[in-house]
Amino acid sequence: MAVGLSGLPTLHPVPGIRLGTALAGIRKKDRRDLVVIACASGTQVAATFTRNRFCAAPVTVAREHLAKTAPRALLINTGFANAGTGAPGLEDARACCIALAQQFNCRSEEILPFSTGVIGERLPRDRIIAGLPLCLANLGEGGWSEAAHGIMTTDTVPKGSSRQFRIGERIVTVTGIAKGAGMIRPDMATMLAFVATDAAVAPAVLQACMLAAVNQSFNRITVDGDTSTNDACVLLATGAAGNPMIERAEGEAYDGLSLAVTEVFTELAQAIVRDAEGATKFITIEIRGGRTEADCLEVAYTIAHSPLVKTAFFASDPNWGRILAAIGRAPIAQLDVGKVAIQLNEVRVVRHGAPDPEYTEAKGAAVMRLPEIRIGVDLGAGHATARIWTSDLSHDYVRINAEYRS
Amino acid sequence: MAVGLSGLPTLHPVPGIRLGTALAGIRKKDRRDLVVIACASGTQVAATFTRNRFCAAPVTVAREHLAKTAPRALLINTGFANAGTGAPGLEDARACCIALAQQFNCRSEEILPFSTGVIGERLPRDRIIAGLPLCLANLGEGGWSEAAHGIMTTDTVPKGSSRQFRIGERIVTVTGIAKGAGMIRPDMATMLAFVATDAAVAPAVLQACMLAAVNQSFNRITVDGDTSTNDACVLLATGAAGNPMIERAEGEAYDGLSLAVTEVFTELAQAIVRDAEGATKFITIEIRGGRTEADCLEVAYTIAHSPLVKTAFFASDPNWGRILAAIGRAPIAQLDVGKVAIQLNEVRVVRHGAPDPEYTEAKGAAVMRLPEIRIGVDLGAGHATARIWTSDLSHDYVRINAEYRS
Repeated sequence: MAVGLSGLPTLHPVPGIRLGTALAGIRKKDRRDLVVIACASGTQVAATFTRNRFCAAPVTVAREHLAKTAPRALLINTGFANAGTGAPGLEDARACCIALAQQFNCRSEEILPFSTGVIGERLPRDRIIAGLPLCLANLGEGGWSEAAHGIMTTDTVPKGSSRQFRIGERIVTVTGIAKGAGMIRPDMATMLAFVATDAAVAPAVLQACMLAAVNQSFNRITVDGDTSTNDACVLLATGAAGNPMIERAEGEAYDGLSLAVTEVFTELAQAIVRDAEGATKFITIEIRGGRTEADCLEVAYTIAHSPLVKTAFFASDPNWGRILAAIGRAPIAQLDVGKVAIQLNEVRVVRHGAPDPEYTEAKGAAVMRLPEIRIGVDLGAGHATARIWTSDLSHDYVRINAEYRS
Repeated sequence: MAVGLSGLPTLHPVPGIRLGTALAGIRKKDRRDLVVIACASGTQVAATFTRNRFCAAPVTVAREHLAKTAPRALLINTGFANAGTGAPGLEDARACCIALAQQFNCRSEEILPFSTGVIGERLPRDRIIAGLPLCLANLGEGGWSEAAHGIMTTDTVPKGSSRQFRIGERIVTVTGIAKGAGMIRPDMATMLAFVATDAAVAPAVLQACMLAAVNQSFNRITVDGDTSTNDACVLLATGAAGNPMIERAEGEAYDGLSLAVTEVFTELAQAIVRDAEGATKFITIEIRGGRTEADCLEVAYTIAHSPLVKTAFFASDPNWGRILAAIGRAPIAQLDVGKVAIQLNEVRVVRHGAPDPEYTEAKGAAVMRLPEIRIGVDLGAGHATARIWTSDLSHDYVRINAEYRS
């Protein structure tokens, strides 16, 4: 069902990063459900996590570990989210880190745990620990594609993205994978996304680079408005490319890295929306003419979260009145409805808050039949803009989420 | 499909109020789609309307007319909402008022127009005007039931409620009807609701009585979070009961009226949720232990609008982790997750932010199979409370809204 997505692109290995996966039988049999990402010594990390107050146990543990030291490995399981599990959940997450640390001969604080799946049930730590040797047995720099499969839950396709660029003589790589198809409305973070580069970057610069990219990618998508308890985005930098250390968030080398990271993040974020649960449409919402970017985002998300707008897109019905109604209820301080304009792709639908004289149902219907549609809204109030991506609401979304645990 | 609703209750006539309906062929043939509610001279009115900035033309006209004079009649059509129609839409609404005023030999400002249906298409004013004589031909105090049918759109059942109480020797009646099944998240108003009493009440007292009742009824329901462009709630008071004029919002007579009005509003509001598009479950969300009522409402609506919570209820799946995740992302300033408790009816699910030791999946599943379910949440932070009502998200919600215009 994924809209405009076919298979993984070429995922260039990142020197210094090795990946191993296993079928550990965590919740279902015969499913690649456990991934280890090992980092060379000296790898820098930038990470951001969900702001859901009921953050999962692995999020709490990963934050604690990051505050103490740089990671040597990431441990990711699917099947169970280990969220809403209280103190026993924290113990489970720590026990898994300890087990992997023993195999790597490092400290458990050098392991970052990540989980995704059903909320509120205990993690079967024994099955995870038993799966670790299987992961380590196939650890390699070519493991990105297998790892992209290994972190999938309701995803129908694996998601990856890769870019290469030059810093002087050196070729630098940025490669990443992500998962997520429902409970998607990242809040200063994302679903699980793991991106690595071999650029040599100072830690503060890496964090700045990641946050700037997240704000234009993972923080600009929504499927159902439900912020997950387990969102996490990690950007690793091994330094193996041998470029002169990027010490400041400016200049040609930083710009090259920032562009590549933002492109990889954006491709992964869009892939999550293209593969949203039940999605049949990939919808870009572009707001302009706002007083502030915050206003533009409020309007964009009000449209994106409207079940009525989403079902109209599923039906390919140019029922633009639902978009207009969503704009009208958006929680912004001022709105002059007489200045609002709406477009569907290049078709002008509403001008000055009323139907455009040249609009016809046939024009609207022609756009709505397409799998990729841009909703353009001009608020006529200022110069701010914002762009987000979302999906439609289909029978399959209901079926998938009604049957999720069965 | 309406949950726990069967047919209309007895709707007591309200002396001074006459209702007439017609099959005017406004959008579909053979459908009761036009209603006139005529008020005796001296009838007081209290009204509240949508806060959607793209309010419909009839809302704008009704507000203008109310600012000038008390109404002699209400004119309600289904089929088209006359919203997003710009200046021509205002002309259409005014033309319909003028036509009815001619028949009633009153001023057009004494007519209040109401519309519901498809947004963004012109009102077929000729068909409405042609239908007016048919409405007037069957005008009568016993017309409540026919009128309840005449304002339905995607409703599967008509909605009405009626109470009688005494003020001294006088029997006072409160009777009302409402419509609405989707695009339901009233904001200081409701979908269309028309309630009348024969109590003698001063205008300011009537308004206070209505707003207090709206805040505990229509403003406490949500189906899909989509605030309509056409919401309106009208409370008429004819004074025909002959009770001493209620001059203040206190005392025995006011309390009796306020209770009856609140009960009628609440029964109508709940009926809207019970008949929500595709609903299979009627869900009461009760939040307590909040710092403020506003915090409680934020948490309640975050749960109520979560597509994942709603699909879990549709599936009768006790997937309480989705409720917990919704609480965790609710936009409130403070939340101590270690103090949060969750119940489903009488079953304790979460205590201190983690699974209750005595909770079992079987207990949760038994509750979730019921058609009426109460989600109880204790935030453990204070003494504020709030209660709202909502429905689940089913295949039929998607089908109904994907097919709405076809």
